[in-house]
Amino acid sequence: MKILFSPFSPYVRKCLVAAHELGLDGRITLLPSNAHPVNRDRDIIANNPLGKVPTFFTDDGQVLYDSRVICEYLNDLAGGTLVPKTGPARWETLTLQSLGDGMLDAALLARYEDVARPEALRWKDWRAAQLDKVETSLGWLEQHSGSLEARVDLGSLTLACALWYLDLRFQEFGWRDRHQGVARWQAQFSQRRSLGMSWSL
Amino acid sequence: MKILFSPFSPYVRKCLVAAHELGLDGRITLLPSNAHPVNRDRDIIANNPLGKVPTFFTDDGQVLYDSRVICEYLNDLAGGTLVPKTGPARWETLTLQSLGDGMLDAALLARYEDVARPEALRWKDWRAAQLDKVETSLGWLEQHSGSLEARVDLGSLTLACALWYLDLRFQEFGWRDRHQGVARWQAQFSQRRSLGMSWSL
Repeated sequence: MKILFSPFSPYVRKCLVAAHELGLDGRITLLPSNAHPVNRDRDIIANNPLGKVPTFFTDDGQVLYDSRVICEYLNDLAGGTLVPKTGPARWETLTLQSLGDGMLDAALLARYEDVARPEALRWKDWRAAQLDKVETSLGWLEQHSGSLEARVDLGSLTLACALWYLDLRFQEFGWRDRHQGVARWQAQFSQRRSLGMSWSL
Repeated sequence: MKILFSPFSPYVRKCLVAAHELGLDGRITLLPSNAHPVNRDRDIIANNPLGKVPTFFTDDGQVLYDSRVICEYLNDLAGGTLVPKTGPARWETLTLQSLGDGMLDAALLARYEDVARPEALRWKDWRAAQLDKVETSLGWLEQHSGSLEARVDLGSLTLACALWYLDLRFQEFGWRDRHQGVARWQAQFSQRRSLGMSWSL
């Protein structure tokens, strides 16, 4: 199996963390890519017309994206338990994944505003609103941090990747002071081997 | 069941189209909302900290988001066939859904650039890159338009909603001239009752 890789993409990381949890990461070859929101990588586009990473190649020759599809495929391939098969637990896990992905989507838009967009065209209110999405999400998680304790699934792993990205790009955001329950959960959960890994080409 | 509704959200539409296909739309109450990327709706946030629509309430009291989770829940509830249960057909359907969602994500970012962002802060290259994502996706679909014919699933329905949104907001984009196979498919597929519906509060 192969994946178009970028070391700082939280969505690529999410796939590799899931693969590690499932014992599959050693079977996935990392391929170079240059995804960019404006200067689009034509080599990615040849396989995934959205031009985004992660883009994944199965051993059967299927091309899969985005991270949600890839992670579910890997879970299925390994016969894993990262996504409950049905019932309320499935919808809860997938909604927690949506929350983590939504935090990441917002953080990435704030990041593009900071580094991709020409300085004269940056809009403070847009950036603030994106980070407010992250903040209100953390507020919700703080209220529910007790229920995070026991879970190792695609929801909690996505969330851990979202927090990883905040630490990577938005250190000044300082979320831990305001959301101490989430911070405690993260400190413990990130002891997992999968979350301590770093991948490179 | 209830859904936080907005008449021009393509993701809300996708859920209602899927519900209609599954014979469930009559059981879903539409609730008003005022989602906005910058002026965030605190009433939505109370239920979904990302502040986005669709946000969905099951009869058991679960809150589900985003559209992918909601559509799969509805398919499961109805015992439907909009998402194959496993195997390559499942990953193909879900990847097609990702493509349609990715086209929509890009189109929405272009739309925000056009109408939400103050005129002096608009970045032409960003808008162009977003619409180029749509264009390269349509190019891929054009090459694969033959394989679209037979399918009625979450992939093809998402795609139809993406094209609906292009017609709603980007009429000048004029994609049909460049992608005539997709245009033919859409003309036929949009005859389905679900895709001809319009919902309002």
